[in-house]
Amino acid sequence: MQILDGKKLAEKIFDQLKTEVAALGDIRLAVVKIGSHSATDQFVRIKKKRAEEIGIKVKIYDDFAEDISTNALRERMKEIVHAEENTGVIVQSPLPKHIDEQAIFNTVIPEKDVDMLSARAVGDFAVGKSKIKPPVVGAIAALAREYGINLTDKYVVVVGAGALVGRPVVSWLMQEKVTFSQVVKTTAHPERFFKEADVIISGVGKPSIIRGDMVKEDVIVFDAGTSTAAGVTLGDVDFNTVAPKASHITTVPGGIGPLTVAVLLRNLVTFAKLQKQ
Amino acid sequence: MQILDGKKLAEKIFDQLKTEVAALGDIRLAVVKIGSHSATDQFVRIKKKRAEEIGIKVKIYDDFAEDISTNALRERMKEIVHAEENTGVIVQSPLPKHIDEQAIFNTVIPEKDVDMLSARAVGDFAVGKSKIKPPVVGAIAALAREYGINLTDKYVVVVGAGALVGRPVVSWLMQEKVTFSQVVKTTAHPERFFKEADVIISGVGKPSIIRGDMVKEDVIVFDAGTSTAAGVTLGDVDFNTVAPKASHITTVPGGIGPLTVAVLLRNLVTFAKLQKQ
Repeated sequence: MQILDGKKLAEKIFDQLKTEVAALGDIRLAVVKIGSHSATDQFVRIKKKRAEEIGIKVKIYDDFAEDISTNALRERMKEIVHAEENTGVIVQSPLPKHIDEQAIFNTVIPEKDVDMLSARAVGDFAVGKSKIKPPVVGAIAALAREYGINLTDKYVVVVGAGALVGRPVVSWLMQEKVTFSQVVKTTAHPERFFKEADVIISGVGKPSIIRGDMVKEDVIVFDAGTSTAAGVTLGDVDFNTVAPKASHITTVPGGIGPLTVAVLLRNLVTFAKLQKQ
Repeated sequence: MQILDGKKLAEKIFDQLKTEVAALGDIRLAVVKIGSHSATDQFVRIKKKRAEEIGIKVKIYDDFAEDISTNALRERMKEIVHAEENTGVIVQSPLPKHIDEQAIFNTVIPEKDVDMLSARAVGDFAVGKSKIKPPVVGAIAALAREYGINLTDKYVVVVGAGALVGRPVVSWLMQEKVTFSQVVKTTAHPERFFKEADVIISGVGKPSIIRGDMVKEDVIVFDAGTSTAAGVTLGDVDFNTVAPKASHITTVPGGIGPLTVAVLLRNLVTFAKLQKQ
């Protein structure tokens, strides 16, 4: 069993980026955040820390009333997105429930959309016209390359259909002409899919929904789900029972998470280069 | 076994549209076509005939040199797309191989993109921000509604990953949180998926790739594939062996095809209403 070491690969990417950033000069990531939420705050803190370590400036916009309307926030977003100092813009989800989150994501122009959550970035990626990859896709692709895993000849099962993991992963697998299945919350007997899977990519955010007795020998597991219980970060996969059967597996934490941050910042550096051309 | 009668449902939609078009006044569909190709010519002819029958004007733009460059065609597309008389614009694929087809599709603005092949329309649909559906998706959704088929509690197998069928269908199934699998050309033993499928949606364009011995009893089949052999139009499904086992099945011709044209024109009428607001 081989651990797919996302943390180590992320460090390698951060090192490369550090050199590139030094050569490029001012790069700034704008982070839009509304309200306070322990998980959200932690994600923002990690991104800020990682960015600053490699010389990228971070500007956090969090001076919004919690009851700000979608329209008012869209107006503020326009200013933030078009500010020349901001090389890229991310909106930390979840936003308060009364806000039309997609309408906010859509204010980010493709040239600054490092998270690729706007409809335009989603579409550009789906038709093969994007210069970058959605962060989770970039993370999985980077790990697969690093460990010599070829997905195109495998049967992949994607668990979850959310905007951050399931949707971009499915879009990617379609482009790569990979055979895959999509399992969702309402899927009856999801283990009938897990049992056949050569590769499982999960992004649900519920602990231990995939257990050792549900997978086949030599399965390859990318766990992009995170949830917290009693202060501990957990993945979707029950590592203790799945790892002994897996040929390759990520850990949570230390797997897809840190690598996603690395890819996000790599996307930002790509945009910085394009903007400075 | 129940035939899913796309032709009949299409006639019903055409009748409704005829009344709406009469009330709306001038509506024009622009069709961009390069070179001559018997299948393409036939598709264009059918769309023109159907549109004109319900009072929609059709303008065919086909005065292009066969060796026109992508850039030159993009320039011409801008004029066509922005001409006020054109309510909607379609580009008849396939374009000559030297042209970047997606770059041409992308010139169609979302407000006129009845075929939903531009990156922006693909993205809008994927994030749930589209006022219309891709024609094939609209056709399948209309048939499912007409015959009381609920896809959300079924296991769907999508065959093919092309821009016209597989990609929009997968995007739709994800939004609807349906459990599905995507089978492609390189899938080893595709029958292992067909055998389990409650519903098969196929859009490959190769005759008889799905046969009776590969499917289970009571399967529901939407055949959106078309190919021609010796002047006869064929689907992906071997109707003679699959129909006896199916609970519901489309025919080719007379199934998804005519209904796709009806949905395309319904999309056009929707845009006409929005433009006249």
